[in-house]
Amino acid sequence: MDEQQAQASRSRRPSGRDAKRAARTARSAAFVPYITRKIPYYEVLTTEGLELLEHNADTILQEIGIDFRDDPDSLQLLRQAGADVQGERVRFPRGMCRTIVQKNAPREFTQHARNPARTVVIGGNRTVFAPAYGSPFVRSLDEGRRYAKIEDFRNFVKLAYLSPHLHHSGGTICEPVDLPVNKRHFDMVYSHMKYSDKPFMGSVTHPERARNTIEMAEILFGNEFHDPVTGKPKTCIISLINANSPLTWDATMLGALKTYARANQATIVTPFILAGAMSPVTVAGTVSQTLAESLAGMTLAQLVNPGAPVVMGSFASSLSMQSGAPTFGTPEPALVLYCMAALARRLGVPFRSGGGLCASKIADAQAAFESANTMLPTCLAGVNFVLHTAGWLEGGLSMGYEKFVMDADQAGMMHTLLEGVDLSENGQALDAIREVGPGKHFLGCAHTQANFQTAFYRSPIADNNSYEQWEAEGAMDMAQRANVSWKKQLAEYEAPPLDPAVDEALLDYMNRCKAAFPDSNV
Amino acid sequence: MDEQQAQASRSRRPSGRDAKRAARTARSAAFVPYITRKIPYYEVLTTEGLELLEHNADTILQEIGIDFRDDPDSLQLLRQAGADVQGERVRFPRGMCRTIVQKNAPREFTQHARNPARTVVIGGNRTVFAPAYGSPFVRSLDEGRRYAKIEDFRNFVKLAYLSPHLHHSGGTICEPVDLPVNKRHFDMVYSHMKYSDKPFMGSVTHPERARNTIEMAEILFGNEFHDPVTGKPKTCIISLINANSPLTWDATMLGALKTYARANQATIVTPFILAGAMSPVTVAGTVSQTLAESLAGMTLAQLVNPGAPVVMGSFASSLSMQSGAPTFGTPEPALVLYCMAALARRLGVPFRSGGGLCASKIADAQAAFESANTMLPTCLAGVNFVLHTAGWLEGGLSMGYEKFVMDADQAGMMHTLLEGVDLSENGQALDAIREVGPGKHFLGCAHTQANFQTAFYRSPIADNNSYEQWEAEGAMDMAQRANVSWKKQLAEYEAPPLDPAVDEALLDYMNRCKAAFPDSNV
Repeated sequence: MDEQQAQASRSRRPSGRDAKRAARTARSAAFVPYITRKIPYYEVLTTEGLELLEHNADTILQEIGIDFRDDPDSLQLLRQAGADVQGERVRFPRGMCRTIVQKNAPREFTQHARNPARTVVIGGNRTVFAPAYGSPFVRSLDEGRRYAKIEDFRNFVKLAYLSPHLHHSGGTICEPVDLPVNKRHFDMVYSHMKYSDKPFMGSVTHPERARNTIEMAEILFGNEFHDPVTGKPKTCIISLINANSPLTWDATMLGALKTYARANQATIVTPFILAGAMSPVTVAGTVSQTLAESLAGMTLAQLVNPGAPVVMGSFASSLSMQSGAPTFGTPEPALVLYCMAALARRLGVPFRSGGGLCASKIADAQAAFESANTMLPTCLAGVNFVLHTAGWLEGGLSMGYEKFVMDADQAGMMHTLLEGVDLSENGQALDAIREVGPGKHFLGCAHTQANFQTAFYRSPIADNNSYEQWEAEGAMDMAQRANVSWKKQLAEYEAPPLDPAVDEALLDYMNRCKAAFPDSNV
Repeated sequence: MDEQQAQASRSRRPSGRDAKRAARTARSAAFVPYITRKIPYYEVLTTEGLELLEHNADTILQEIGIDFRDDPDSLQLLRQAGADVQGERVRFPRGMCRTIVQKNAPREFTQHARNPARTVVIGGNRTVFAPAYGSPFVRSLDEGRRYAKIEDFRNFVKLAYLSPHLHHSGGTICEPVDLPVNKRHFDMVYSHMKYSDKPFMGSVTHPERARNTIEMAEILFGNEFHDPVTGKPKTCIISLINANSPLTWDATMLGALKTYARANQATIVTPFILAGAMSPVTVAGTVSQTLAESLAGMTLAQLVNPGAPVVMGSFASSLSMQSGAPTFGTPEPALVLYCMAALARRLGVPFRSGGGLCASKIADAQAAFESANTMLPTCLAGVNFVLHTAGWLEGGLSMGYEKFVMDADQAGMMHTLLEGVDLSENGQALDAIREVGPGKHFLGCAHTQANFQTAFYRSPIADNNSYEQWEAEGAMDMAQRANVSWKKQLAEYEAPPLDPAVDEALLDYMNRCKAAFPDSNV
């Protein structure tokens, strides 16, 4: 058979009734609260290579040091723990950070959701997919690009809630620019609590806003917030703490980090690096610097509250050396990702990176190539917490409605990939080959009948039909199909049940807090 | 720094003059005739898993057997070698095929190009990228989809020649439907010889057409065609031999296989499988069947001419069990690919698979997601000969001009990925971090100045500019930029030099052959 004759098989299809039954089954497939991988990690470096990069990170920490800016409290803690503090520059004796982190930080931890069926485990061989984070703009085929509003924020919380392939509600899914800067965190956190029952992220733009997030979580979880045995708060919030690379932590991020760490809430300690500007133009240099910065931040969290859950984060883009613009989906950040994941495993902490990153402004081929070239390494490397899984456009400046649907579909494919190869007797399928034999086809055989409802990942937005059928249906591209999908999903959305008394208490808390100080946009 | 502030770094860009100089350098980067990988293979199964699948392949070969249709000559060869032949059904004692292939087939081989600088090594840790193969249609933004012509064929040969990221001219890049079926192979082979100096593939649609290809290669290579020491023909042609799965080889393909093998020309022995129709609906079942079919074909090649170069091929798509249509870029074929590459390494023969496969009709996000989800596994798995690297659309029914440019760009990224991580002192870049220190940026530092011209892969068609600049330049999607690119490339194309006497001899041979029998479209 010639390869161009692929279409011939289309006439040998299952009956329409079979297909409908299969589609129903696929839709009701069991939701998993997080992925437990069954395939090996991809390791790009040998142990010797990783040891070299660890050695270099320690050299950076010891010789050059890290600036902790405008935060005497942190400097004091670090000095007491044995660091050499000169002004705001902190130098760490070789091995100090690694020892403190390994001695105290949990290898994995549970982040509770208000619906216990959605509670996630972060670390080890688990992968958790969360939406993209932080865009001031949104984009859709209908409206093009415009500033994000709280309505968009709610929409994306709903879409993330509806996706069986996203495990987490995320954090600042987009910036609700229609609300005052100093109060919008209330509405964001409330939206996660009200419109989803998946776990969520907290505010980090001010220590006080971190405190508000924790207090709202206490209201939401009620008696469940504290562990009945230890009396300690359960981990119900995870939050993104970015370094100011190179080699700098600032007071705002440190304040939020310490607030969450003291309350036993998780932090993702992430150097956010555009390589070439904020780190050297090489993969190995970027990796060593990222490890050093993250180690310093995680060390502080462990000094504040030994055992507080931390995630080592890495966000690396390479700069276009022609234009100075960040680029995504290129090979160098993928190499950084593989290295960092391996280093996190050696350190023994959960790892955050990756997602559907792209520089493209629209959900076109560029966006898809770049996103896939980040998402597949994310999964093969073994990222535990995948921020920016869905919606990311334009280097994070824009959250795309159609892109969100596409990326959630890709996340679904990753579920299947991480399941690996079924080597059971049914998976081996020797009986099927025996039954069919040379020159026949497998569509009607007993093994196919028994398995076709669950066989093969099914994309809800890929078009695999014949050219003629595709044309008859309007010759739509994937973005147009995704546009139909998100509108239909939002139209059919139903909120997960929330105790009206809790809802009222949350609204009351928000309104009291908001009334206590004037609106501001700084 | 918040992640949405990525754009801030754009103001800290290198000067325009620097950027132009860098772009010139990037353009003149040394062409490599093939990739020598420096990163590990990704292995999805353990040794025990692979042994199980090998055992099952042997069970298929022994119990069920393979049909060799309408080819008494092959049946006779197989019987003499120890197979059990009943009618056209051939059953192989356990281990027979493996033993014959391992004893005779080369682990790697050289395919010569008329320009020795383009000669490729196929096998081991090398990767060779060849264009897509076999489409009856072409597609461009200008003309939409229409039947392919010989002019399109020449255009794609030229584009493949011009791409520094494609190592091979390919074969039936598209079907020149404007030429008679029984003579178009002359024009296809001539186009590869005339418009490119990269290695190429031969005709397989009839043993006589395989002979024509070999005779034209003898004219093209002249005294270089035979090894001066052994007197044997050098391997100057590689050709695609597809099984008629399940478990069937037909006379046309076997005839071409034997013709090439006798002349020491390479064959890619490939089960072409739409899983669910032509193999079981499972990964493990599809892998065992593919291995069995390929082993049987390679065994025949070794019986015809021991030592003839063969490549184990795998082409696997999963069927949509809803519509019966083939799907691409889904996780199951990627798992098949990882397994097959590992099995080829264990067998000790080169491996062919992968490429930029997709079901999408157009070069949209679907095409890109699917292609990347095939191409990245292709490279991580360690495919030696990558057919369908560039241009593939619509399950192979259409060759896309814009898609070709996009895929060639992706192939360029794979060059960088397979280079791995530079752990030299310059790669480690500790001095850069020492020079810059906390809170500064790396754009002007000595290490960046020394390295920025070669740092980071540069896509010629990705747009990484600011939203405002992108909009001012026409808000083009990647397909539109690719459209500009291929037209510019074809306008600037210059043919590689070819001895006029050789050209005349090729044309004379073609014309004599064509005149000897009437045109036919069967």
